[in-house]
Amino acid sequence: MSSSTSDPPFKSVAVVGLGLIGGSIALAIRERWPSVRIAGVDRQAVLAHAQGSGALDRGSENTAGIGDADLVVLAAPVRQNVALLEQIAGQLPSEAVVTDVGGTKLDIVEAARNLRCEESFIGGHPIGGAERGGFGFARPDLFKTRPWIFTPQAGARADAIERLFEFARGLGARPSTMDAAAHDRVMAFLSHLPQLTASALMDVIGGAVHADGLRLAGRGLVDTTRLASSSPYTWRDICATNADAIGDALDALVARLTELRRDLRGGSAIDTIFEDAARWRTELMKGRE
Amino acid sequence: MSSSTSDPPFKSVAVVGLGLIGGSIALAIRERWPSVRIAGVDRQAVLAHAQGSGALDRGSENTAGIGDADLVVLAAPVRQNVALLEQIAGQLPSEAVVTDVGGTKLDIVEAARNLRCEESFIGGHPIGGAERGGFGFARPDLFKTRPWIFTPQAGARADAIERLFEFARGLGARPSTMDAAAHDRVMAFLSHLPQLTASALMDVIGGAVHADGLRLAGRGLVDTTRLASSSPYTWRDICATNADAIGDALDALVARLTELRRDLRGGSAIDTIFEDAARWRTELMKGRE
Repeated sequence: MSSSTSDPPFKSVAVVGLGLIGGSIALAIRERWPSVRIAGVDRQAVLAHAQGSGALDRGSENTAGIGDADLVVLAAPVRQNVALLEQIAGQLPSEAVVTDVGGTKLDIVEAARNLRCEESFIGGHPIGGAERGGFGFARPDLFKTRPWIFTPQAGARADAIERLFEFARGLGARPSTMDAAAHDRVMAFLSHLPQLTASALMDVIGGAVHADGLRLAGRGLVDTTRLASSSPYTWRDICATNADAIGDALDALVARLTELRRDLRGGSAIDTIFEDAARWRTELMKGRE
Repeated sequence: MSSSTSDPPFKSVAVVGLGLIGGSIALAIRERWPSVRIAGVDRQAVLAHAQGSGALDRGSENTAGIGDADLVVLAAPVRQNVALLEQIAGQLPSEAVVTDVGGTKLDIVEAARNLRCEESFIGGHPIGGAERGGFGFARPDLFKTRPWIFTPQAGARADAIERLFEFARGLGARPSTMDAAAHDRVMAFLSHLPQLTASALMDVIGGAVHADGLRLAGRGLVDTTRLASSSPYTWRDICATNADAIGDALDALVARLTELRRDLRGGSAIDTIFEDAARWRTELMKGRE
């Protein structure tokens, strides 16, 4: 692609939080635009790991390390990102662009409005997660062909949105924009509900059949519970900042499970739900391998 | 392996129902013991498909086609297997062994006792399913390294159990025995609960976000809902014949989801459930790739 020699949309990027997503962003920038200076902010042990892999030009344990970055990426858990935004809002160069990568968007977008930085802060959500967190699982191709949703507010700088799109495309992702509230509602179903369900399911099954029973499990259980490896670290904040929508999604699932339970011995629920589910599953898989 | 030249435990096998499991058994026998005569019973269109792939020596649309088989494998949905057993119980040679491959075992094992054929009928359950049914998805390696549980009753012929173990091992599986009631209870959690959950989840999510929203889904949703492609055809019978245990499993999951819902904004449920789930998930993956 000719874009491989194009100028980077940002010349100096600071990534705050070098877990799976932040770490993968640093690695992906390094691969795509080797000239970009990358600053990382995290605990010392994480910085050492990231610097050892060549992902950073410099590391710092606090946001002073952001320096004169023209892009700041907040990649800590959601509520920490909000606190970080409050902390850095006053100290950035006026031309700097700030984004985040959190799984919920309403809280941080509201914080940006309250801080009067909705011009330069544009919330983001790259859909490229995995069930294993930490820099150790970071990889430069995490975003390849994945959606990357941005949630700009009224008043956001057009050039900031354009450059973030170019940035996301450069890392291989497919950027789009969405209203923050709509994002959180859709993600309650697409992402948060499957995560909570996988964890609840694995917990219930393990508690019922124990280690011996688990050895008799087929591939179905293995796939259905892959997300159950996730740690509560990220999910506490996602649940707290999207509780209403997640609550509605959980209610809908419980209602459907209750219909199935009622009709186990006969009745229409099994046929109806299985047939609708199979149709949605086909829809989900369109355009995927 | 030296076993590749050993005598087959059965010289003539009849497979009744040539879907994913029955079809895979026929293909696996053909590959493992080419000398074994294989009879198939199914609808004409399925027989044509199976015969075209070389899996059968002869096909028949009814159980008269079982002939003098020394092993009969019932591979229709559970309640049809019970009806088939009633139909063939009187007409088999005294030395013939009969097994089935259904996902629940109590009903058919009780039927065998009522028919006074618990000597020669030994229920079986190869854990090698997939979300796509039908002969078109059958493959000879479906059982490789997978558990194959048998549920013999008091009075079962020891030689029948031994030969079924040899048969299952020959197809690559790892045979073991289990009490039928214990099997059904464990499978309510290991297999039936994940299936119902995956279907309910996909139905709820598709209904909430529609086709446009599904395009924003990550790999987590894709894995969690793989089983949602399953058709109700097999599952109607499994639910009806294991309703009590599945009901308990559904209740346990709903209780756990309700705890999560209560603590979305804070509280211990998210931490506790995620941490327990991650531990069980690690246990589940032991010995798997």
